Amino acid sequence: MQKYMDYSKRVEELAELLAKKDGVNLSKLLRRTNPVDIEEFISTLSSDDALLVFRLLKKEDAIEVFAKLDPSDKDKIKKGLNDAEFTDLLEDLDFDDMIDTLEEMPASVVQKILRNTDPEIRKRVNQYLKFPEDSAASLMTPEFVELKINMTVKEALTTIKRIGKDKVTVYTCYVTDTTKKLLGYVSLRNLVTSDENTLISSLLYEDVISVRTDEDQEEVARTFQKYGFTALPVVDKENMLVGIITVDDIMWIIEQEATEDFQIMAATTPEEEEYSKMSVWKLAKNRIPWLMFLMISSAFTSTILRSYEAVIQSIIALNMFIPMLTDSGGNAGSQTSTLVIRAMATHDVELSDWMKVFWKEFRVGVVSGLSLGLVSFLKCMFFDNVGVEISLIVAVTLLLVVITAKVVGSLLPMLASRLGADPAIMASPLITTIVDSVGLIVYFNIAQMFISVAPL
Amino acid sequence: MQKYMDYSKRVEELAELLAKKDGVNLSKLLRRTNPVDIEEFISTLSSDDALLVFRLLKKEDAIEVFAKLDPSDKDKIKKGLNDAEFTDLLEDLDFDDMIDTLEEMPASVVQKILRNTDPEIRKRVNQYLKFPEDSAASLMTPEFVELKINMTVKEALTTIKRIGKDKVTVYTCYVTDTTKKLLGYVSLRNLVTSDENTLISSLLYEDVISVRTDEDQEEVARTFQKYGFTALPVVDKENMLVGIITVDDIMWIIEQEATEDFQIMAATTPEEEEYSKMSVWKLAKNRIPWLMFLMISSAFTSTILRSYEAVIQSIIALNMFIPMLTDSGGNAGSQTSTLVIRAMATHDVELSDWMKVFWKEFRVGVVSGLSLGLVSFLKCMFFDNVGVEISLIVAVTLLLVVITAKVVGSLLPMLASRLGADPAIMASPLITTIVDSVGLIVYFNIAQMFISVAPL
Repeated sequence: MQKYMDYSKRVEELAELLAKKDGVNLSKLLRRTNPVDIEEFISTLSSDDALLVFRLLKKEDAIEVFAKLDPSDKDKIKKGLNDAEFTDLLEDLDFDDMIDTLEEMPASVVQKILRNTDPEIRKRVNQYLKFPEDSAASLMTPEFVELKINMTVKEALTTIKRIGKDKVTVYTCYVTDTTKKLLGYVSLRNLVTSDENTLISSLLYEDVISVRTDEDQEEVARTFQKYGFTALPVVDKENMLVGIITVDDIMWIIEQEATEDFQIMAATTPEEEEYSKMSVWKLAKNRIPWLMFLMISSAFTSTILRSYEAVIQSIIALNMFIPMLTDSGGNAGSQTSTLVIRAMATHDVELSDWMKVFWKEFRVGVVSGLSLGLVSFLKCMFFDNVGVEISLIVAVTLLLVVITAKVVGSLLPMLASRLGADPAIMASPLITTIVDSVGLIVYFNIAQMFISVAPL
Repeated sequence: MQKYMDYSKRVEELAELLAKKDGVNLSKLLRRTNPVDIEEFISTLSSDDALLVFRLLKKEDAIEVFAKLDPSDKDKIKKGLNDAEFTDLLEDLDFDDMIDTLEEMPASVVQKILRNTDPEIRKRVNQYLKFPEDSAASLMTPEFVELKINMTVKEALTTIKRIGKDKVTVYTCYVTDTTKKLLGYVSLRNLVTSDENTLISSLLYEDVISVRTDEDQEEVARTFQKYGFTALPVVDKENMLVGIITVDDIMWIIEQEATEDFQIMAATTPEEEEYSKMSVWKLAKNRIPWLMFLMISSAFTSTILRSYEAVIQSIIALNMFIPMLTDSGGNAGSQTSTLVIRAMATHDVELSDWMKVFWKEFRVGVVSGLSLGLVSFLKCMFFDNVGVEISLIVAVTLLLVVITAKVVGSLLPMLASRLGADPAIMASPLITTIVDSVGLIVYFNIAQMFISVAPL
């Protein structure tokens, strides 16, 4: 163990031993492998191999590995076990993992399994199965250490020694009164660094930050992140302690929420499933309605162009700058909308800041629009040689398009949020469509103004 | 404390007490407030008020609050303390927080402060200040619990009782040999649930997953996330234990990396500073070069349009569909590039999967292109009344543009990564520009083909 260990090759090493049918060394290496990597390994195997490897695991690893498996991989294992074996395995899981597993199975199977379990467990399971998905309650487990306020440190440590092995964490211990109301917590750190006759009441941290059962999982993740906790108590409306959530169960939520925003902003229906696992049909199904919607809304531009056909035909040179103008507007708008959407997601910007954001983006729009306008004027004059009038029309339009794009890009995500929608739907594709239409109208109207003053 | 506590109003409550100059109740409420919220409160105050509130804090809160303050807020406090007070405060900080604070100060000030500190600390500080930003080493702290392999549980607990208060965590204790090589770890959970005569060696978990000092912080965050650890040991090339990283210091990294990708994908220079804190000039500076680059590259489209001016003038109806075609291409491409970029960022898709991704997106492109083509054909025929030839030209172009967009959108992010660049730079804006050009050429060539066969 003295060498720095490269775990990235572990799955390949296990696969090699399995291919060689070297059960002895496979079993040895499995014992030295983190359950997370074992799960990764098993998920690549056929039903028979998966079961074979699973049976080689020591019990505590088997429990952890099973909890982490995908539903389809869990099925592979389940099929190879008899009912009694499977019920035993289920009961050994951490309570939150057991609930997750049951939630993935058909209701009839769940009821059949529950018939064989302890009535106390059955009652609790049925209660947990009713919690809404994505709520704090759906992430919590009742397996926490509960201490009494009148205990000494010695008594507390004796309690932890007795019951600690079955709890998801022993590092934060919760103190409740006789009605289960949360009084506070003590950390194991304080317990082990204090004299054994110290009273729990003197170590109690009373100002506990807790989450409510019905709180959204994203809010729970933000609370963890903000305060740097490793566990949080979950209380009901009467402040009764009903469970705890540990940090390892919420670390993926922040990433998942970001992925969801990426998906919505790219105009696809958000999906929890990983990209690599989605079928062509599912990907197409999540995208086509949005493409269709955007295509049809961009038909506005056709109508606008058609109504200015006469202008285009008389000055065909105007036409060649349309894609550059609409692209620049789209880019300027998507810069703003993306940053605003992200700032709202990370709670850097709140809805009440809308005036500040609008004013900031307006000014950024003026600065950017002037820069782009100047460069495009020079390009039109000296590269495209389209004459000073058209160069000026293009430059002024660009200035106005960029300002419009910045304003629309800053306000629409906030408007969506105000209306109770996800700000991310107001991302580049939709803003592009809006800014395109505005841009074209501005372009042709400026052109008509210039032309009437100085016909070409 | 029996009520569920709403912490969202805490900062306002503190501000009210400060405004009333009610020092007694302010001090009381501060004692019942999490340092994270106190930091939020202090960051809103003037120098004088900040110092006043800071002086009301009990010592352990003051240390935690100071560590969390922004550099400018730290300065407010620093100015109000004399040199000895400030050096004391610095020495009380967790080692990683002390390093962070020193890194934010001018080198001359740091050297002046270090002159007053213990030579041992000074040596270590100078060593830490040399670690590259964003490396594992820059996140670590040397304040961990180190145990010896021949200790009993009782001896280990006695050691923890003695030194635990000064360590960032006591929940994972590291066992090293005489040369400081990492042998493994024991969890405090195992220690407190085992008999006191048990030998550490029998509780030792040897197959430690560790990170190297030079590893990138994003990789460190992924390791935490994958395995659900709350602390990770940091080792040097000889596997000597040099420090540990705790989960609270890396929870923001995953979010920060996602934010950086959002920024790059929106075609702005990534910035660690929060949106709300950036000035108009900084925002403009981060965006204008990208807008300029994209504007100039979209000048290709002007050249293309100019070369087909004759076709447009003879069939002006073709012109009105150009924005719809280019927008749809851009949207189809950005759907794909965004999902691929995100899948690469979360390690769902690796570079070696490029063929799989290409083939998947090609098929999604065919399905989406056919759907959009069909709908656009019907719209052109029966809504725009442009006749069957133009409707067909538009529909076929749309099919080809969507397929091209999907292929380009899937391959470019992977190509960027292959060339050592961030895949996120190949996001919608750049792909839009490419797909626009391809789309226009396809459109006019198909139009010319149709027209030569069946002149309108």
